[in-house]
This record gives sequence, structure tokens and C-alpha cells, in this order.
Amino acid sequence: MIKVDLNADLGESFGAYKIGNDDNILPLITSTNIACGYHAGDPLVMTKTVKIAAENGVSIGAHPGFPDLMGFGRRNMDCSPAEAKAYVLYQLGALDAFCKTNGARLNHVKPHGALYNMAAKDKALAAAICEAVAAFDSSLFFLGLSGSEMITAAKELGLRTVSEVFADRAYEENGTLVARTKPGAMITDEAEAIARVVRMVTQGTVTAVTGKDIPIAADSICVHGDGEKALLFVQKIKAALTEKGVALAPIGV
Amino acid sequence: MIKVDLNADLGESFGAYKIGNDDNILPLITSTNIACGYHAGDPLVMTKTVKIAAENGVSIGAHPGFPDLMGFGRRNMDCSPAEAKAYVLYQLGALDAFCKTNGARLNHVKPHGALYNMAAKDKALAAAICEAVAAFDSSLFFLGLSGSEMITAAKELGLRTVSEVFADRAYEENGTLVARTKPGAMITDEAEAIARVVRMVTQGTVTAVTGKDIPIAADSICVHGDGEKALLFVQKIKAALTEKGVALAPIGV
Amino acid sequence: MIKVDLNADLGESFGAYKIGNDDNILPLITSTNIACGYHAGDPLVMTKTVKIAAENGVSIGAHPGFPDLMGFGRRNMDCSPAEAKAYVLYQLGALDAFCKTNGARLNHVKPHGALYNMAAKDKALAAAICEAVAAFDSSLFFLGLSGSEMITAAKELGLRTVSEVFADRAYEENGTLVARTKPGAMITDEAEAIARVVRMVTQGTVTAVTGKDIPIAADSICVHGDGEKALLFVQKIKAALTEKGVALAPIGV
Amino acid sequence: MIKVDLNADLGESFGAYKIGNDDNILPLITSTNIACGYHAGDPLVMTKTVKIAAENGVSIGAHPGFPDLMGFGRRNMDCSPAEAKAYVLYQLGALDAFCKTNGARLNHVKPHGALYNMAAKDKALAAAICEAVAAFDSSLFFLGLSGSEMITAAKELGLRTVSEVFADRAYEENGTLVARTKPGAMITDEAEAIARVVRMVTQGTVTAVTGKDIPIAADSICVHGDGEKALLFVQKIKAALTEKGVALAPIGV
Repeated sequence: MIKVDLNADLGESFGAYKIGNDDNILPLITSTNIACGYHAGDPLVMTKTVKIAAENGVSIGAHPGFPDLMGFGRRNMDCSPAEAKAYVLYQLGALDAFCKTNGARLNHVKPHGALYNMAAKDKALAAAICEAVAAFDSSLFFLGLSGSEMITAAKELGLRTVSEVFADRAYEENGTLVARTKPGAMITDEAEAIARVVRMVTQGTVTAVTGKDIPIAADSICVHGDGEKALLFVQKIKAALTEKGVALAPIGV
Repeated sequence: MIKVDLNADLGESFGAYKIGNDDNILPLITSTNIACGYHAGDPLVMTKTVKIAAENGVSIGAHPGFPDLMGFGRRNMDCSPAEAKAYVLYQLGALDAFCKTNGARLNHVKPHGALYNMAAKDKALAAAICEAVAAFDSSLFFLGLSGSEMITAAKELGLRTVSEVFADRAYEENGTLVARTKPGAMITDEAEAIARVVRMVTQGTVTAVTGKDIPIAADSICVHGDGEKALLFVQKIKAALTEKGVALAPIGV
Repeated sequence: MIKVDLNADLGESFGAYKIGNDDNILPLITSTNIACGYHAGDPLVMTKTVKIAAENGVSIGAHPGFPDLMGFGRRNMDCSPAEAKAYVLYQLGALDAFCKTNGARLNHVKPHGALYNMAAKDKALAAAICEAVAAFDSSLFFLGLSGSEMITAAKELGLRTVSEVFADRAYEENGTLVARTKPGAMITDEAEAIARVVRMVTQGTVTAVTGKDIPIAADSICVHGDGEKALLFVQKIKAALTEKGVALAPIGV
Repeated sequence: MIKVDLNADLGESFGAYKIGNDDNILPLITSTNIACGYHAGDPLVMTKTVKIAAENGVSIGAHPGFPDLMGFGRRNMDCSPAEAKAYVLYQLGALDAFCKTNGARLNHVKPHGALYNMAAKDKALAAAICEAVAAFDSSLFFLGLSGSEMITAAKELGLRTVSEVFADRAYEENGTLVARTKPGAMITDEAEAIARVVRMVTQGTVTAVTGKDIPIAADSICVHGDGEKALLFVQKIKAALTEKGVALAPIGV
């Protein structure tokens, strides 16, 4: 039976600031990436998010990012491999402390925002991040952009990888995401997006922006819970996958 | 044989900012409290400090503080028990990540600065900190002000405690430190300070600021490495203790 | 003709984090206190908030707070007068830069959160804050808790003061706010709250929590825009004041 | 008479962290760039630095940088023109508050670190920074890398420019600095460095790394005070310039 994971970023609130729709997206997903206090999240938010994820049977992952709260970790910044490794270790350790003291288990790691985007293309940065993960706990799954340098680096270090695909993004022929600045980068038609997801998951194929079919590994689908429309979209994706006989299961299950 | 530990705070540099005298104090101490990125320290500094502590055979402790880099964690701030517990867990986890990936072992926890001073007198705050430690790893030693609420709270939670004394501070009859704002708070005569340390360690007694002898538990002595004079003072303390047959040993050894 | 100002805190968003209801409260108020990047706000938020305040003819004030984004500036923290003065100057200067480059004028200063609450009772802290204001621009109005040390300090330095009252808070006989932890601290009945506001503004009197009538200066009323109910409440206050012939006017007009 | 300015970065300490050698470099320079709290500096440090600069008759400039204390503002980061403009305005305003309340005058602006390096080559970023300066106070001098996009942008906005040269850096034929990663980037021979400075200032010429002489505007020389050797080097530069009849004068004098 074909299985796929649905993952969403949670725990991005900070102090008095609430962001996201954690309570509503939680029942719809199988895995979550929890912010670790650098680009988002704080110790109280981490405590609460780990608890509700565990209570909902959602698999927990760390979502380390750049130390840039003002930019929400979405701004590229120069970062040496040594810095990246240390930043990831710091955040992994911090989140794991809330897992182990709340009866939960840290199951995977997914870099956030600019760290994710940069490491998708930068071999040395990808290797540094994966070294941190492997050194911390070699049984952790690594969740990264399908076909990217992150997946390659994680495999080379013996980590179990989870290839992530996006429902609303177009792909180049080489499997990379079409840059948001280019025309056609976003799949705006909902039905088309869902059909693409089903095909990626069941056939391992997607039509690139050039019109050519390319192979793609699709172990996990990234979803969002911001707003009614986004939640409905996730429900439609789930329904379409279930109809095709695809099982929704957390990473590693 | 009577044993005592010598502890010092290390790893307080941050980014381009260097503080302290880590390389010179390291050979003189048996345990170190390493900053965890809230009041001082950053992931690269933590990596390096854990490594050199391990290489020098110095026992490693976490030194969690308030999220107040501008105030170096020395300013009292309102902090609920839930916040304090979460802050300590966050920092413990972060430091432990560097220990486990560098072949070292986290051995104790000592609160820093204002968190230490407030928790010495505040039962609820002390309990919250100790709950974080016990939940994270109940085999960790808790290092806190001798006779304080911290030691009481740690014992109640079943943690192994290490009672800390100060060479250069005067004590009230109830065993608390004389406030720095009061006359006679500091022991400025070096010979007197050393004699007091020896007596605290070997006899469990110290003369309070009132002139009355009081009992005091002295498992660890807090020392500093800032400046030539401070380093010499540590060497003199070590020599005096050794001469009296006291063994210097890391926490738990 | 009796006049009163309605003030609200705006510009408290930060990076990707949105907080408050600036667009909806803006048409209802006459003055606004804008966060300056320490407890809330960032340079882009400050730019936007100054612009929309100016466009709506709302008088602009600086809302300096403690450097505690995680606690939204609501946590008391030890802060020397020299630190407080420097923190306020820093934030005043920063906000003023956005005023002068957007055709607006900085008109008043109101301390935020814990800084406001502490300075209401702490003579030295109040003096330090007011010294910063007077040194920066002695023509600025100082907005502070009616009858507090802040108002006294501002007057002593020759600043023009604006005494602030709260619609939903009870007062002690000495004019201070009843602590939130005490019973009866909040005025929960809407009609009663509005009647109290009208009486404070038109008669300069309020009934203390003990039942005794006390005099109170009421130059400005603090209102909030979080949620439909709060906005309706502001509209009702405005209607009641207008009905009694009170003019709503920005600070200094 | 030919004049030149000697500028150095001061006020880079933060909280308990001391950095730099402000007291020793101050008597040797004619202008200083003071950190504004983003990449370095805090309100107390800014207060003190503005005071000692004014007391020493050193012309004061703002030294705005990226919001990256952990990286000391030295890491390139993605930053939109709107963000850059707002960041510079924020920091200009903050520093100016300390100038106007300490009887000093803000005289120039020099971007710091990565912001300086990026803006040297990025037209849009350079324009955004200069727009902030011009909007804040069009009489401010703009201090930037000689021949860079910053100088061009500042001139286009009508700002008075100050072209900065480096004693210890090699230049490409197009007037840009040789990247530090390339061989020959640094001028390590002290006598050669001084001879180059004298020639740049008196003849407006420098020998590029290729061996070809190129024209260069040299209104201000960037110097450093970290360490005895650096201080001696500054003294030698001053002596050499004085001997050649060059007057050392603050920006704009």
C-alpha cells in the first residue's frame, strides 16, 4: 500500500504574538515541524506545541532556522558550515528537551525557510546541517526538498530521508522548484494542484514547467493551515489521496 | 578524605565579543558552568567551550539564565514558574546537544546571575527550576547557594545537591549572603578569605557578619578567572586546601 | 468646553507577527502611542504606523518599553535610572526619525507596560524617564497615569502633562489603580465603566474601590481595539462623552 | 592645503561585553562612526561614546548595520530596499537622540560591515540607504567606499560625500577592493601601506593589484585601534601625512 505523510509547520508563535492556526491544522496532518526559538517559537510555545502534537498522535520534528526573528528566518544570510551545524544542534537540543519531558519523541528534522532554501542548493551547507542531525541522533529522519542537495547529504551520512513535495509549486525539469519570481511558479488551480499531488505520490511523476514529465520522490506533502481556504485544501488533498487508496501515515510509520 | 569542587563560569563570550579568561582558569578548576545562549554564549562558543572543558577533564554543567543579553542575566525580572521551567529546559537541552555530540557528559546545573539570586529566596521559582532539571535528567547534580531555597527544592525533588560557598562574601546568621549594598558584604582581605574557605570546607563552619559561628555546607567553591589577581587567588585557595589534606574533585567524583 | 483625548497603543506588530487592530481603532481615537522596537514594533511597522496615524489626523506619541520582546515589555525588570533614561532616549530618537521623514510630528511620550507601572510608583525611575523626554524635546507632552509619580516628575521638569485614566479599572482612595490581583480591580459592567469615565472627565471625580469619592485628573482615556467588543465599547464611550458636551481632541489641541 | 579625515569605528561594546580600544584611538582620529544598537552598541554605550567623542573634538557619525548582533553585522543578509531604508532611519534617529541631548552634532553616516559591503555594489541598496540619510537630514555627510555605488547614490540625492580609502587593502583596476579571498588582497608591508595612503591623499592615485595606476578619491582614511600595533600604525600614517603637508581635519571642516 502506498503511504504518504502530510507535514505542517507549527509552534511559530512568540511571546504575546500568535501566528498560524495550530489547533485547526493539527487534526489534518500526520507530522509537524516545530519552531525552536531562533526564527520563531519560544520555550512556552514549544512546551505547548509538543504537548498538543503528542496528544493528537502527530509525529514531531524540529524546525531549526536562522537566528532572525525579525525576518522570520526567511531571509538568506551568510552562514558558515560551522555556524549552521552549531545553530542546528542548539535548536535540536532545545526542542528535544521539551519532547523528552513531555512523553514525546523527536522523530525528524526539517530546516526552515531560508536555511531550507539555501541548503537545497548548497552542498556544504546541506552537509553541515545533516552532520548536526546525524551527530545528535542518527535515528532521526531528515525531511527535505525532494531531489535536493539536502536529501543527497542526508543519505551520504546514513540518515533516513523523507522527500518533500509541494502541492502549489511548479518544478523545473531538473526537479528543483521554479523560483517564485518566475512566471508559472505557483500552481493556482486547486484541482490541478490536487491531481499533481496524487500523481506524485502514486506514480512518482510530475509534469515540469516545461511540459516534460519528470520522476519525483514524494514521501511527504507540505501543507499550511493559515485560513479557511488552506484548511479546506488540505481536506481535499486528504480525500483525493484516500480515494486513490493512499494511506496517510506519519514519517517512519 | 574531605573533598571539594572548584567551579567557574565559562563560555560567556558571544559572537565577536570575548569575555572571561577561559583558557587560564580551566586548568585550575574541577567543574565549569557553561552559558547556554540566553544571557551569554552562542552555539559556536558552546561548541568550543564544551570541547575544551572535556579535554581538560573538567566536569560540565549548564548555566541557564534569563533571556537578557543586554543585562548579562544579572537583572532581576518577573518570571513565572512556568516561564522559568521552560527557559531552563530550553537551555539545558541546547547545552546537552553540544555535550552528547562532543563526547562529553552534562553533569550538573547551576542557575546564573539574577535567576540564581532570585531562586535562592523564592520557593516557587526554585521549585520550577529544579522541576526542569529533574524532568530533563534526574541524575544531574544541582549546584546552588548553600542553605538556600534552591537546595531545599532540589532535595525535595530527589536531585543530588551541591552546596556552593563564596570565598569573598560575608554571610548572615541565617546562612544567606550579606547583600552587596550592606557594609561588610565583601571579604576583601585575601588571607582571611582563604582561611574562611578552608574552615567552611574542613569544619562546615563560618563566622557570620555578626561574629557568630554558623554551620554551612561547602561542597563547591565558586571562583573567577578575570585578571591575574583572580587567578593567583584561585591558586592560593587550591594550595591552602591541599595543604590541609582536602582533595579537589569534580562534582560527583 | 471640556475636552478629552482618547489614546490607544498601535504599531505593536513585529516582522511576520501581526498584533492588534490598528486599522479599526484608528478612526476612533485622537492620539496614539507607537511602539519603538524594544518591546514591540520594528522599523517597517513604525514606518507604516506613523504614516497611517498622520493620514488619519491622529496625534503621534512614542511608546517606549523595556528591551523584552519575549515578554512584550510587560515584565518588571531591574533597571537603573541611567539605563531607563538611555532606553527612552534611544526609542524616542528612533520613532522621531520616522515622524520627521513622513511629514508627521512627535507630540507626546507614554511609557509602556512594566516601565509605565514601575515608574508610576518609583520616583527615581519616573524622573529618569522624564529627564530623557525633557532633554530630547521639552515641548513634548508627557502622558502618564493620573496622580502618579510620573506626572509629578514630569511637572517638576517643566513638561506639559496629560493625566491618563482607565475606563475598566478601579481606583484606591489614594488615586492609584487597584492591583489586578485584588478583588474588584476591574470594572466589568460596561454601563458603569462608561458612567465612571463621563464623571471623571466632566467632574474630575471617581468613586474609589472603598466607596469614597476622590478627585482625579482625566485628560486622556486609554482605550483598546482588540476585538469587536472593545471597538464597540470605544464607540459607546465616545457617544456618551459627546452627548455630555465633551469634545474629543488630540493631546495639546 | 590638502586635507584628509581619519575615521574609526567606536562604541561597539554591548552590555557587559567590551570590544575595541576607544580611549586610545580617540586622540588619534578626526571622525568616528558610532554603532547604533543593531550590530553592536547599546543605549548606555551610545551615551558614553557620544560624550567622549564630543569631549575630544572628534566629529560624530552614525554607523548603522544589520540587525545581527551574533554576527556583528558582518554577514551578508537579504534585505529589501524598504527594510534597509527603515533600518538606517531607526538607527540614525536613535544615535541622534544621544547627540542632541549631549551637546553634540551628528555630522555623517557610514554603513557598517555587510551593509557597507553589499551597498558598495548594489545600486538599489545604496539608494535606499542614502534616501534614509537624505530624508533624515540632507546636511549630513555620507561616508562610503571611494568609487562605489554608495558614493554615486549619495551624490544623486544631493548629499555631500566623503570617499573612504583603506591603507591595508589592494584595489582592482576598476577601483573596487580586491576580495579578501583573493591573493594580494591585503597590503601587509607597513611602509608600503603608508606610502600608498600618502599617494592616494596627495595625488589621488593608487597602484591597482594589476600594477596599473588608477585614480582614486581619498577624503577619509579608515583606521583601527585594536592592539598596540594598530595604534602605532595610525600614528605613523598621521606622521607621514603631516610631513607631506597634509592637514588632518574632521569631515566637513
